[in-house]
Amino acid sequence: MPKAPVLIDLKFSGRAAIVEALGAFFSDRPVIDLADPQTKGRDLSDCRYAVLWKPDDDLFSRAPNLEVLFSGGAGVERVLALRGLPDVPLVRFVDPSLTRRMSEYVVLQCLYHARRMPDYVRLEAERNWQQLPPAEAGDFTVGIMGLGVLGQDAATKLKVMGFNVIGWSRGMKEIDGVECFDAGGLDAFLERTDILVGLLPLTDETTGLFDRALFERLNRSGPLGSPVFINAGRGGSQVEADILAALDDGVLHGVSLDVFETEPLPATSPLWAHERVVVTPHVASDTDVRALFAHVERQIARFEAGAPLQHVVDRAAGY
Amino acid sequence: MPKAPVLIDLKFSGRAAIVEALGAFFSDRPVIDLADPQTKGRDLSDCRYAVLWKPDDDLFSRAPNLEVLFSGGAGVERVLALRGLPDVPLVRFVDPSLTRRMSEYVVLQCLYHARRMPDYVRLEAERNWQQLPPAEAGDFTVGIMGLGVLGQDAATKLKVMGFNVIGWSRGMKEIDGVECFDAGGLDAFLERTDILVGLLPLTDETTGLFDRALFERLNRSGPLGSPVFINAGRGGSQVEADILAALDDGVLHGVSLDVFETEPLPATSPLWAHERVVVTPHVASDTDVRALFAHVERQIARFEAGAPLQHVVDRAAGY
Repeated sequence: MPKAPVLIDLKFSGRAAIVEALGAFFSDRPVIDLADPQTKGRDLSDCRYAVLWKPDDDLFSRAPNLEVLFSGGAGVERVLALRGLPDVPLVRFVDPSLTRRMSEYVVLQCLYHARRMPDYVRLEAERNWQQLPPAEAGDFTVGIMGLGVLGQDAATKLKVMGFNVIGWSRGMKEIDGVECFDAGGLDAFLERTDILVGLLPLTDETTGLFDRALFERLNRSGPLGSPVFINAGRGGSQVEADILAALDDGVLHGVSLDVFETEPLPATSPLWAHERVVVTPHVASDTDVRALFAHVERQIARFEAGAPLQHVVDRAAGY
Repeated sequence: MPKAPVLIDLKFSGRAAIVEALGAFFSDRPVIDLADPQTKGRDLSDCRYAVLWKPDDDLFSRAPNLEVLFSGGAGVERVLALRGLPDVPLVRFVDPSLTRRMSEYVVLQCLYHARRMPDYVRLEAERNWQQLPPAEAGDFTVGIMGLGVLGQDAATKLKVMGFNVIGWSRGMKEIDGVECFDAGGLDAFLERTDILVGLLPLTDETTGLFDRALFERLNRSGPLGSPVFINAGRGGSQVEADILAALDDGVLHGVSLDVFETEPLPATSPLWAHERVVVTPHVASDTDVRALFAHVERQIARFEAGAPLQHVVDRAAGY
């Protein structure tokens, strides 16, 4: 009996990369790529697995026999909000390459602010040779909100670079060498933090969490005077009007944002042009489709061998 | 008998930091700070130790009984070139804070280029939400030239961040997990290198070393196409006209320079305004005077106890 087909509905920007990667995976079963016009109108009732990112509205009615869903990204709030989402396991995308790249982004942005690069970029534009008071990583405490796989790896690498690192998560975590806080310790966590790093999933509790009231609770006596905010979690967690106002009146010193309330970030947003804001277009840890398909293959093999799936989303928690 | 005085002649930019730091060191002996107008004309023949950076021309004739000289920075080519330099031990400044900060600079700049930040800065200025093909540290080989204390620490930290790292030094070094090359292996080293990091001292052999002919030998099939050059060693090792030409015709993809042929970098230099050049004003690892004085105190204590001095410069090698 042939193996059950896998359905692909990935609305990523890099189409060519998906086609190329599909040639190297799922060689033991049919692949139905909905972006291929030839699949239009095909009966999908034989599909048992689906790999999804912004799928078609009618996908679940067309494919009523799905047994496992795979999210194309680490964040699953969009998938959970889909209408008609069947009550089957939803597997999050967790991969060493996602983790590594997120840590690269976090270390890069923390060093960028700690080493005063926004000031040196301005001085370079002015052709002004001016040595600012030296600061080093060890002078800063980075506070990471969100201590899943990504947050823990970032914490480890920030410590290697010399930063002091503390962490916050809803439930208490234990990480070697990193003082951790839980929901009840938010005040104590924030007042120690010079550089706040957001790696939170988007849930009801985290929506709009990064607002002016929160920024005002961060440490105001660090090496740069006021604190830095870096968000690579979800844009829905931040209040962009508050960020801009906080930058302009000194509540925040600098900001790096990879995620936004609306993506793509509208061309009219004042964030683009602010000299103390580093904007990147949601690329801190974008999905490498080869790694995604390798992960899906591994999980399908486990499922078909009767082993438990890994990284299954807790729908009650929302992540 | 009172302990021998220590002479301070440090022409650093941050005068206040020196005065403040001197209050906390050398409490067991007289300190003669030549920047203090009250020391003008004082007999210096009782001074046994001198801590120097760009010292007065007549220093060595005024202080003929110096027994140990301490360089105020890691690079000693300026001190070695001083007229009348006595034939006594010259101690280089080696300190964990210098090393840590240099590694911060190197990791920051390597990540900045590997993660395409020069492109994202340009796209931000254009308010253009465009996701470039992803690249991660593991796609790059960083080649470090200069494997002293600074180069070895940078290599270790770059590896933690996921970069492949190879190293070159005049004489062969052995570093765990880092393939090393010596003088005879320069070609093999360069053709593997996607990001070249210069951490070399300035000697006759390294003057003008980083020129167009060398850049052309770097790997031309890396993730960015052409290679990146980062110099935090000495500006005299680079040929700036060649760097600019190489950027403009694609022999180099991007550059980060902390050191320059002439410092301060003249306002007329085209390096300031080039969009693929990151200019910082020799701050990758500027001397922390507190750390410098702590190091000098440790070495004087060794010397007076009859123990060998550490980090003594080899005058024949020039570093």
